[in-house]
Amino acid sequence: MRFAKGHGTGNDFLILVDPDATMAPSPDLVARLCDRHTGLGADGILRAVRASTVGHGPAAAEWFMDYRNADGSIAEMCGNGVRVFARYLLDHGLADGPEFAVATRAGLRQVREEAGGEITVDMGAPTVTGHSTAVIGSGQYEGLEVSLGNPHLACLVDRPVAELDLSAPPLIDHGRFPDGANVEVVRVRGDRHVEMRVYERGSGVTLSCGTGAVAAAVAAAAAAPATVGPAARNGRARPAGTWTVQVPGGTLLVTLTGTTSLLTGPAVIVAEGELDEAWLAGRAVAATLATV
Amino acid sequence: MRFAKGHGTGNDFLILVDPDATMAPSPDLVARLCDRHTGLGADGILRAVRASTVGHGPAAAEWFMDYRNADGSIAEMCGNGVRVFARYLLDHGLADGPEFAVATRAGLRQVREEAGGEITVDMGAPTVTGHSTAVIGSGQYEGLEVSLGNPHLACLVDRPVAELDLSAPPLIDHGRFPDGANVEVVRVRGDRHVEMRVYERGSGVTLSCGTGAVAAAVAAAAAAPATVGPAARNGRARPAGTWTVQVPGGTLLVTLTGTTSLLTGPAVIVAEGELDEAWLAGRAVAATLATV
Repeated sequence: MRFAKGHGTGNDFLILVDPDATMAPSPDLVARLCDRHTGLGADGILRAVRASTVGHGPAAAEWFMDYRNADGSIAEMCGNGVRVFARYLLDHGLADGPEFAVATRAGLRQVREEAGGEITVDMGAPTVTGHSTAVIGSGQYEGLEVSLGNPHLACLVDRPVAELDLSAPPLIDHGRFPDGANVEVVRVRGDRHVEMRVYERGSGVTLSCGTGAVAAAVAAAAAAPATVGPAARNGRARPAGTWTVQVPGGTLLVTLTGTTSLLTGPAVIVAEGELDEAWLAGRAVAATLATV
Repeated sequence: MRFAKGHGTGNDFLILVDPDATMAPSPDLVARLCDRHTGLGADGILRAVRASTVGHGPAAAEWFMDYRNADGSIAEMCGNGVRVFARYLLDHGLADGPEFAVATRAGLRQVREEAGGEITVDMGAPTVTGHSTAVIGSGQYEGLEVSLGNPHLACLVDRPVAELDLSAPPLIDHGRFPDGANVEVVRVRGDRHVEMRVYERGSGVTLSCGTGAVAAAVAAAAAAPATVGPAARNGRARPAGTWTVQVPGGTLLVTLTGTTSLLTGPAVIVAEGELDEAWLAGRAVAATLATV
């Protein structure tokens, strides 16, 4: 079985190409592959299947991105993942650039290769649902509730985000977030320029989070003086423009158009290869984890 | 540049084959390769160079293991690493099994493939230098000071080793260990059967440590009733036999002969492949870590 490894701002993925959907990796195999010590290691798996073979019309998109979390569970979408997925397809001549659609469980996602090689994905319209607070370390912070399909609480802070204590999950209002939420801490560093760290529900602190970057930009935009774009003209909280979002794994650009959001950033292939047959078959000697 | 990824009880390595010593990976490249998110990820690099090209006589060993830590620094030896190194050479017909020597910076190491596919390495004679104590969490523990080239303090405990708090470095007597030490917590689970966790100086808690497993067996043997082997016959503290050492990443066997120590365990190749040219040249877009 062939694989590639890639990452987008430190969110890393294994890409498995399975055009005719013949392999159907089990949750157990996904977890073994993503194990960072006894496998290859990744935040998740991007399996490339021809959309027509899994019921998506080929007219809409040629490829379906079957995304799996590192624990083997299924997820709808991943903003950094789909950018790495697009980079792989383009590198291998499996998609016609610079712009094409990728089918995901969350629907079609439009991707585009930029002149510098970065990849942009249309993340859809962010929805602001209200305000609530998070307890982070010993402090309490106001946040903006933003949905990008998944729930976020983006908290503007006035000190370097590296100083915030994210070693434990932030405490949020479970009445507002019955399924939990990703919590972002966001500091404005300049004109449409923020730095952000994120605590992802289920994963903890990560180097990057695509939807979190969009939520951070939305929160910064909502708090900014409405001097530009539609917000300035009509007084409604729909600021447009491009925000630079620094995350621990690199730099992302988030463009808010008023109707949708675009996420732009590096998407890098690190290596490609072949899984060892014995390892794949589980025949490799005594590799199971003990219970110590 | 081709690579393989493998592991021994969860200690994982990238193998780079460079017979004629033409590549000389920089510390920066080693660190990039070992980065678990933006590279391939590993505890260290095992570079295979023909011993004759680096001044080791071909009569003694055909291959030299150039071991590098994940941060790019050079290390003398790695017990789990040399076992994975041997597995790779055997799989590729680069060494004649079942027994051969590998040249390392710590000298020659004899390795052997067992009938079940596990790999044994002769780790040399452990040296007991005394007793001292470690403060681990809120408790103080007696330990046996054992040198395997590198210094260890192996502490026998009477509760499950999973319960010991290794989230912070154990406090040891720096008069006894001016260069620090790896600290093992060891619980006897049965006849010549122990479980062990380790805090490695410079690395923190790891899934496995070859020299630590030997130190754990030495400590358990020293404390055991001298009913078997040379110790029983001559009353000296040189117990012989084979200990089963469970570590978080699997199970190792340690054989103490009275004159040397043998470490046996699984050595697994997970995958092989080719590094991406653009990534290798550093040309991949904006992959550098930001300072958030």
